[in-house]
Amino acid sequence: MSKKLHIVKVGGHLVNDETALQEVLAAFAKIDAPKLLVHGGGRHATALAKQLGITPQMVEGRRITDADMLDIAIMSYAGLSNKKIVAQLQECGVNALGLSGADGNSILATKRPVKDIDYGFVGDITKVNTAVFLSLLNTKIVPVLCAITHNKKGQLLNTNADTIAAQVAIALSKTFDVRLFYCFEHAGVLHDLSNPNEVMETLTEEQTEKGVKNGIIHQGMVPKLYNGFDALKNGVNEVIISNVNALTNTKAPKTTLQ
Amino acid sequence: MSKKLHIVKVGGHLVNDETALQEVLAAFAKIDAPKLLVHGGGRHATALAKQLGITPQMVEGRRITDADMLDIAIMSYAGLSNKKIVAQLQECGVNALGLSGADGNSILATKRPVKDIDYGFVGDITKVNTAVFLSLLNTKIVPVLCAITHNKKGQLLNTNADTIAAQVAIALSKTFDVRLFYCFEHAGVLHDLSNPNEVMETLTEEQTEKGVKNGIIHQGMVPKLYNGFDALKNGVNEVIISNVNALTNTKAPKTTLQ
Repeated sequence: MSKKLHIVKVGGHLVNDETALQEVLAAFAKIDAPKLLVHGGGRHATALAKQLGITPQMVEGRRITDADMLDIAIMSYAGLSNKKIVAQLQECGVNALGLSGADGNSILATKRPVKDIDYGFVGDITKVNTAVFLSLLNTKIVPVLCAITHNKKGQLLNTNADTIAAQVAIALSKTFDVRLFYCFEHAGVLHDLSNPNEVMETLTEEQTEKGVKNGIIHQGMVPKLYNGFDALKNGVNEVIISNVNALTNTKAPKTTLQ
Repeated sequence: MSKKLHIVKVGGHLVNDETALQEVLAAFAKIDAPKLLVHGGGRHATALAKQLGITPQMVEGRRITDADMLDIAIMSYAGLSNKKIVAQLQECGVNALGLSGADGNSILATKRPVKDIDYGFVGDITKVNTAVFLSLLNTKIVPVLCAITHNKKGQLLNTNADTIAAQVAIALSKTFDVRLFYCFEHAGVLHDLSNPNEVMETLTEEQTEKGVKNGIIHQGMVPKLYNGFDALKNGVNEVIISNVNALTNTKAPKTTLQ
């Protein structure tokens, strides 16, 4: 059996709530094993865009990352959020080190091809280079990844943090027994949004397809679940969806993908 | 004799000029030895502050880093500038990795004590931890440092990039023969600002004191020179002040501190 690696993805909502973020980082600090954090961006970038008088471009309900929005994403995700998380983890005694996919050439992506919609500077991951992660983990440094990748041609790209977490987990599952934990504001995937205490303990891909069709599983949850099942089918040992309680308390409610 | 390490500090003026920056990074990429880059911030942060309607606080001609300006510095230096430089270096075939002083706990600082002026969130360096630099350099990764440090109590701090370059150079001079190169827009320290082709080939601390007194050496150059002499007196082998030409061409004009 390989050594265990904990990969925790912290959602954008938590990153933007100072108290919630502190709670998550304190819990993450308590994990006494090799670990890696991936964080989303979220509302700060939108607020910053608004302050700068930039209106996010939307096409068919999807946000477009034009050059201005990309700069804002880089400043917000790789700058403010990443460095504040790293500094807070350092305070908690975790030797954290922040990375974008350009750093150490760790995550390569290609600009999403234009079909019906031109998403702009959005990256689809093509390769995860584990060398820099392994080198850092070997010296007990904890990588902290933001949702920015690059194409090795000088272009930074905005990339979904859930996908980054899944792809990095898959790549590192060749070396570690990986536990991938999607940490968000709910205790797990809910049977009913109006009843936040009842979570699905386990969830299969088939149940997910059904749940999406009949509307039990909320649209916002779908990409997270697809990334989670992708990880599970490609070498990751365990995929959990839950809130901060389940990060350190094994008895707390959570949803385990199966 | 130890192995040689090239530390290049790129000034804020160059960082903010796309063409000049590309030229510097291409020259830096050609240095065929262990190397490390430190970059200043500069005008982008000021422009961003203006766009956000934040007026930089000045006291006796010195800029004060209040909480808003610190966030802007983090976004601009550790975010946009650092990641764009890293992505461009990756394009040039350099396996760069961006760091603030919080990352890997590499540069510790203390908030500047309030005497006559409260500078706000400005950090005076107290310690450089070389472990993360050595670990990265050992795996042929090139550290790229921005002008942000931390106090290990969760607080990020704005810190002079010239001082960061000097202090990191001093700390790494225990392991390497360090050449510290301050790369800016002029060919070196000028005898006369109106004649940019005549540089002082060498410069001693005594000459500097005299030059400052009689106004030959410009005030803006003074902190860079003091940092340079500090490095020279504390283990760094060579301190050069020049422009991009001298980075790769040993015959190009430059000022060598003595």
